[in-house]
Amino acid sequence: MNEGSPILFVLVSTCLVLSCVCSEVCNLGPLAEEIASYDTVVKRIIDYAVSGPFKGKTYNELAKFVDKFGARPSGTEVLEKSIDYMIDLTREEGLNDIVTEELEVPRWERGEERITMLEPRVKDISVLGLGRSVSTPPEGITAEVVVFKSFDELENTPDEKVAGKIVLYAPIFTKYGETNKYRTQGATKASAKGAVASLVRSITPFSINTPHTGSQTYGEGVIPIPTAAIAIEDADLISRIHARGEKVVLHIRMFSNLETKVSRNTLIDLKGTQNPEKLVIVSGHIDSWDVGQGAMDDGGGLFISWAAPVILKRLNLIPKRTVRAIFWTAEELGLIGAYAYEKAHRHESDNINFIMESDEGTFAPLGLAVGGSKKARCIVGEVLKLFKSINASTLVEEDAPGSDIGIFTGNGIPGASLHNDNAKYFWFHHTEGDTMNVEDPDELDLGAAFWTAVAYIIADLSEDIPR
Amino acid sequence: MNEGSPILFVLVSTCLVLSCVCSEVCNLGPLAEEIASYDTVVKRIIDYAVSGPFKGKTYNELAKFVDKFGARPSGTEVLEKSIDYMIDLTREEGLNDIVTEELEVPRWERGEERITMLEPRVKDISVLGLGRSVSTPPEGITAEVVVFKSFDELENTPDEKVAGKIVLYAPIFTKYGETNKYRTQGATKASAKGAVASLVRSITPFSINTPHTGSQTYGEGVIPIPTAAIAIEDADLISRIHARGEKVVLHIRMFSNLETKVSRNTLIDLKGTQNPEKLVIVSGHIDSWDVGQGAMDDGGGLFISWAAPVILKRLNLIPKRTVRAIFWTAEELGLIGAYAYEKAHRHESDNINFIMESDEGTFAPLGLAVGGSKKARCIVGEVLKLFKSINASTLVEEDAPGSDIGIFTGNGIPGASLHNDNAKYFWFHHTEGDTMNVEDPDELDLGAAFWTAVAYIIADLSEDIPR
Repeated sequence: MNEGSPILFVLVSTCLVLSCVCSEVCNLGPLAEEIASYDTVVKRIIDYAVSGPFKGKTYNELAKFVDKFGARPSGTEVLEKSIDYMIDLTREEGLNDIVTEELEVPRWERGEERITMLEPRVKDISVLGLGRSVSTPPEGITAEVVVFKSFDELENTPDEKVAGKIVLYAPIFTKYGETNKYRTQGATKASAKGAVASLVRSITPFSINTPHTGSQTYGEGVIPIPTAAIAIEDADLISRIHARGEKVVLHIRMFSNLETKVSRNTLIDLKGTQNPEKLVIVSGHIDSWDVGQGAMDDGGGLFISWAAPVILKRLNLIPKRTVRAIFWTAEELGLIGAYAYEKAHRHESDNINFIMESDEGTFAPLGLAVGGSKKARCIVGEVLKLFKSINASTLVEEDAPGSDIGIFTGNGIPGASLHNDNAKYFWFHHTEGDTMNVEDPDELDLGAAFWTAVAYIIADLSEDIPR
Repeated sequence: MNEGSPILFVLVSTCLVLSCVCSEVCNLGPLAEEIASYDTVVKRIIDYAVSGPFKGKTYNELAKFVDKFGARPSGTEVLEKSIDYMIDLTREEGLNDIVTEELEVPRWERGEERITMLEPRVKDISVLGLGRSVSTPPEGITAEVVVFKSFDELENTPDEKVAGKIVLYAPIFTKYGETNKYRTQGATKASAKGAVASLVRSITPFSINTPHTGSQTYGEGVIPIPTAAIAIEDADLISRIHARGEKVVLHIRMFSNLETKVSRNTLIDLKGTQNPEKLVIVSGHIDSWDVGQGAMDDGGGLFISWAAPVILKRLNLIPKRTVRAIFWTAEELGLIGAYAYEKAHRHESDNINFIMESDEGTFAPLGLAVGGSKKARCIVGEVLKLFKSINASTLVEEDAPGSDIGIFTGNGIPGASLHNDNAKYFWFHHTEGDTMNVEDPDELDLGAAFWTAVAYIIADLSEDIPR
């Protein structure tokens, strides 16, 4: 998951609504009864995925995939091989409506990265460069640190106290959507004040000396300066020393390379029986950061989205509309795959009936974060009532849910992001700790069942989801 | 904390007893009333440390110490400087009965450590060598991995299937005292079967790709082989690949150096008014592993033990017996300082009335893990009743509580280890994550108050703690 793209800086008003509460003010008429009639299908899908032949399948296939490929950064050969692998895996299930769409993507390759505190004592700093960061000069940068808790503090400091120095942003984590601006915009604002490098306290509520990478963008007109995240422990160490009035000097060596390569979005269709042109999309991204193994971000979302057409095919549940699984490419460096898809398919965007994405973890599903009109949310809320048995009936109202699909939901296309029990998501996010150990077989079974059944029902209803 | 020493392999029967339950079967007679009369002193100490002039002091002094010195490995100059610093800090409080006792300690210096998986794909493995590990040859070791979940599995495997290979022990963490045998004895058992190196899944219930170092000892008569801990994520990755029947090949490069140096135990006495020769000892160790900063292991224990005589001196609470704070050296490589003290002071060991140690975290205090006779535990249980206001009245029965002091409590000297809310202790234990971020100012205040008041009461009672 990447929340660095401009579209997501918009403050969203998030409102938690239990679906039963929501439906009290909804009047769906006969549609409510129609939705309720899917209870046997829901039970069948849950049984199949949670205790039947598909039990453990999502986890096991994800493990084989992650163990085989590891990290799959945008623009790499390993990412392309992993895409081929997913296509083969899908064909083995008898699903052959598979299309890949090429696009240009950035390949930002991390080189040596090392930060050493030189004063007041010598200490290695736990570091990860941020996406698209420029390199230091070959000899590195040695400079004093100035610490800021907020952009306001920076703005209120005279330029001459920042110029030539290394800026460290050390805000305490509140919410990802609030705190990550110091990662995404920090270098730009520091450079504008004359800083020679910009560091950010990793965007996380918890750490075992764990640095968290992530995307950032240089604003127009500023000199791009090297920028990295450091572990919160090291940020707090430097902050304490700085607060005691002692001088902190760092030596930074960071090298990277940025090229343009070609990658592919992957589209897998389970064609609808009545309106194959109409789409219910389930999606996750197949690329990952170069650190960790992309098991959580977004291997889990990728595999429950893969599971949806697979389970429906296996159960011969073919809905009226097409269920399309999309494996987005190059999400982490700025939703590149999703932007390309939106542009290429804009002429037929009216056909998107509902678009779903899982990119905030696949812990136990709790429901959906839904964007769209009031009636759209009413219908989805009614559908969610069918998942009380697995405790996944919560509807969270969001203006533009999702990361990749925020491009669509932000434009009024109804859609939803998986709402799941992801309190620890940011502990592992964009770190070396994003591995299979974060994933749980039973939770993935529940996620696959939920994802599949929701997609099926919405794709099969007699009414479209209204805009 | 180090639980690798032979004395601690003994299975201890741990029994949780609320002090109120315990005292029902105790008949302390007038002593119970005497103990109860200390309630005003307890309140005074708690007020002083938790909301009075000492509030925040333990955390702030610990932070200054840890920030200044960082890691303090056995045998290093930085450890000796940190000892000098603690002596100066203590003298500033007007405590001048300070003695240091020299002893020889190992200096095990970690060099380059790198493990790369070569087959089935190239991947860096997250590694930390174990204490006293020998080096690989300069060119490293390249060999296939065999995975074992237990020593039984290893023993039941023919030697020829182990010879020439790298053994990986991948037991799932149950309890530290159960699982750490794979770290402490793994290399010896693997070498006996002809393995060329021995790896262990880090001894922890939780990880963000975090390797955990620790001590190990080569048994007599076996060829010492390089040995290291790897992150549980990497151990599980290798285990999964191995379980699928695929060959895993690793390349290991590990270098280290082992020398003998001189260090010091530090003894700080607040002399008793009536029986200065009798001792109530409070203690923690000042050395740390080379990774992390020794804030939790054992900076917290060090500083609440420092705080005890300091707070008593400040409050002019001078008990009948001497309160001695001991800062053990070289705990991590095998309780070296504690063994030296025990040997040097064996002739006067009858004078140890009670010995206390904090080396399992200084999270919120819950009570004490107490070793000693039934009557000794009855008395301590009665004392603990005075700490209900801070929820620190729990008495846990242990045969030989503590790490350094296990040498004493294992020999029948009554003593106790701080029982605290340390469920996350092993998440950070022996890792780069052992930093000030683990410590909490309020919890340290409570710990300092509790530690000080318990030591004072036991040192001041009209009766000795019986053996």
